[in-house]
Amino acid sequence: MEKVKKEVLVLEDILGSNKKIAGAIRKKLLESGILAVNLLSSPGSGKTTLLEKLSLKLKDRYQLGVIEGDIETERDAERIRSLGLPAWQITTHGACHLEAKMLARIFDWIPADLDFLFIENVGNLVCPASFDLGESLRFVLLSVPEGDDKPKKYPEAFITSQVFVITKCDLLPYLPFDTDRVTAEALEINPKLEVFRTSALTGEGIEAICTFLEKKLQELRAKNA
Amino acid sequence: MEKVKKEVLVLEDILGSNKKIAGAIRKKLLESGILAVNLLSSPGSGKTTLLEKLSLKLKDRYQLGVIEGDIETERDAERIRSLGLPAWQITTHGACHLEAKMLARIFDWIPADLDFLFIENVGNLVCPASFDLGESLRFVLLSVPEGDDKPKKYPEAFITSQVFVITKCDLLPYLPFDTDRVTAEALEINPKLEVFRTSALTGEGIEAICTFLEKKLQELRAKNA
Repeated sequence: MEKVKKEVLVLEDILGSNKKIAGAIRKKLLESGILAVNLLSSPGSGKTTLLEKLSLKLKDRYQLGVIEGDIETERDAERIRSLGLPAWQITTHGACHLEAKMLARIFDWIPADLDFLFIENVGNLVCPASFDLGESLRFVLLSVPEGDDKPKKYPEAFITSQVFVITKCDLLPYLPFDTDRVTAEALEINPKLEVFRTSALTGEGIEAICTFLEKKLQELRAKNA
Repeated sequence: MEKVKKEVLVLEDILGSNKKIAGAIRKKLLESGILAVNLLSSPGSGKTTLLEKLSLKLKDRYQLGVIEGDIETERDAERIRSLGLPAWQITTHGACHLEAKMLARIFDWIPADLDFLFIENVGNLVCPASFDLGESLRFVLLSVPEGDDKPKKYPEAFITSQVFVITKCDLLPYLPFDTDRVTAEALEINPKLEVFRTSALTGEGIEAICTFLEKKLQELRAKNA
């Protein structure tokens, strides 16, 4: 019993300290007029690919930056850099999620004139949901091959996000995945979710997300003015 | 500094205690001649579907039991029960992995005359890898839609497993996934891995895994004799 209590206390301590650092990061980002987006999903749901597609549409009109969270390797950061965009790698060496303190350590490297800062979290549909990074928007991605039964099985990521992106919709003809069912289930958990159906292959939904992001950036800047 | 030290100490305490309980579970299972298999993967890689296919091949000749680990819902346990097999649900309510103490709590429910005990872990390619459950074999699954770059990005699950199952191989014609590349990368991390290519749709690889499991069961029983 004593041990359980100790574990709970330490967890609260970690989360409490995370919340404080995230709050400071959020304040700085908002003051700089930067819209930060934290992308959450399982490995292989298409976070990096979605970022590539959004970046190609946005990079001529906006200043973009990407933070790549990975347990090991710089593979994703290299993919982003090959588009000519700045990408900062956080390698967690085993840790299953990003924490605000990891961002704080590299925060000075991030130019204050960015418009959008994308943060690709570690591939994990569970743990990253508990850690605020100071973002303005949280995206949860679910790919068609993962199955349409996931929102209720992994609710926390859906509860804490503002945007739900269904990815790899070009695979719908080959797989038993009901987009209406998954949308209804996600909205039952979190009725405020904005839902987008996307395919990086056909380009479906990419323009709609860009329009949404531009609107959110305008709203953020209007508040600052 | 003090806080970091405390966190590390508590984590070691949790893992140390987990190892002890897992050791006791392993001893009991081996004495009963039960081969326990712990299945690890991201959500939606096909753990439940693989279990369904293996069970259908094995259930007429062997006594099977399944422990289902999920954050929320009993959906997977219901799928297994609908095959006429006993399934015990562990709902972790937020926790991102199974721990040996969770199994210990339901251990008395598990019949001693089982041949195979399958343990489907929480869908998460990261955290479950750190927790021994007392299993004889650990399977890591990776589905074709997740991408062939995952072993080095999520090495722990591959290092601690004996078997690597590539699932959803029927999707290979539609997706850029190189089975040779992923196999080579996984073997570079862990040269002892047994690798199986499978498709629940076409049945590819299911028979081969059953043969492998039967051989492992015979070896376990031979040691007991």
